[in-house]
Amino acid sequence: MATDARFERINSVLDCRQMDLTVLMEHVNKPHNLSAIVRTADAVGVHDLHAIWEDSELERSNFYSSGSNNWTRVHRQPDVDTAVNQLKQSGMQILATHLSDTAIDFRDVDYTKPTAIVLGTERFGISERALELADQHIVVPMMGMVQSLNVSVASAIILYEAQRQRALAGMYEASQGVEPEEKQRLLFEGCHE
Amino acid sequence: MATDARFERINSVLDCRQMDLTVLMEHVNKPHNLSAIVRTADAVGVHDLHAIWEDSELERSNFYSSGSNNWTRVHRQPDVDTAVNQLKQSGMQILATHLSDTAIDFRDVDYTKPTAIVLGTERFGISERALELADQHIVVPMMGMVQSLNVSVASAIILYEAQRQRALAGMYEASQGVEPEEKQRLLFEGCHE
Ligand SMILES: C[S@@+](CC[C@H](N)C(=O)[O-])C[C@H]1O[C@@H](n2cnc3c(N)ncnc32)[C@H](O)[C@@H]1O
Ligand SMILES: C[S@@+](CC[C@H](N)C(=O)[O-])C[C@H]1O[C@@H](n2cnc3c(N)ncnc32)[C@H](O)[C@@H]1O
Repeated sequence: MATDARFERINSVLDCRQMDLTVLMEHVNKPHNLSAIVRTADAVGVHDLHAIWEDSELERSNFYSSGSNNWTRVHRQPDVDTAVNQLKQSGMQILATHLSDTAIDFRDVDYTKPTAIVLGTERFGISERALELADQHIVVPMMGMVQSLNVSVASAIILYEAQRQRALAGMYEASQGVEPEEKQRLLFEGCHE
Repeated sequence: MATDARFERINSVLDCRQMDLTVLMEHVNKPHNLSAIVRTADAVGVHDLHAIWEDSELERSNFYSSGSNNWTRVHRQPDVDTAVNQLKQSGMQILATHLSDTAIDFRDVDYTKPTAIVLGTERFGISERALELADQHIVVPMMGMVQSLNVSVASAIILYEAQRQRALAGMYEASQGVEPEEKQRLLFEGCHE
């Protein structure tokens, strides 16, 4: 792509970023899941993601050197209390993806509100503590024999429901977009690679 | 689970199978993608899937021995012409997932009709021949920098739109379900494992 066209493209993508929509991953550590989640986030305009990892998980996941992370920011968080506090302080509703007695259908949520979606680790799901801290538990309905979806699949289904609602509400035309410094950084890197 | 309850569960799952909704995979060969696609299919009530593989791909994918395939049937097809012909003869509309000039938004499709969704291989996407044979090209809209979604993610977003439409239309209450012999097989296996 010619540099001018590429500049325009990056510019317009960053202008419609949804800075008040995010994902918090609790020990999600398989490289293919992380990469799929970040790709989907980029596609729906999520710019900031959060992740809690053990050092060993982060190493195995090879995440920061894989190149998956070029167009979004994944912020490492020390623990779920810190992460959820920070997200709540910025005004977000916290949605834990988990089949519990009180879980509601993911389509019954208003995603035009500032929202953080908490995703659980591949084998064991979401922590008790995250379930406690969440404002709401949500679930993608399943009509089959298998007990759960792949984590990147579940998050994509939910993020595209958010995209649908936000597109209807005109939020991609009138969004705040990324802050100026981040835009400069990505325009510079994106046009000199 | 007690055997009676399990028997009931399997029975009711198989009764709401959507026999006129399917997926055709063209050389999808990464084990984690195949497993995620089959899990999602099961979850939305798809019982039959179709796949085109080279022998070497099938071997590497380890698919039939991985246990992903316990609750659905994945039919191996020799080539795309044979596969699409068979699906068309059973009355299905053929939707190719591909960003082309004529592609429409995946949400603008009526999935209550008999439908087959064609998915492309991880690196190169859908074949020219499949694009030619398809009734319609569909795309999941993307507002980011990345050019495509992971294939299991894209298929899940589309299958859950089909699930939404079919649930609204009452198609999970009044579906034909799997045929008696298949039901017997799965009830037998499922209650004696
Ligand atoms: C493979 S699942 C974890 C399964 C684990 N055995 C459990 O019981 O929670 C990994 C993550 O994917 C997400 N997930 C999977 N299926 C889901 C569904 N049907 N609804 C919402 N989230 C789901 C959740 O974030 C979950 O923690
Ligand atoms: C990783 S993509 C293939 C990318 C390939 N470079 C291309 O240009 O087609 C693998 C498959 O995922 C599906 N897919 C990915 N993104 C999609 C989207 N936005 N809409 C519809 N299908 C998509 C299609 O089936 C595609 O063939």
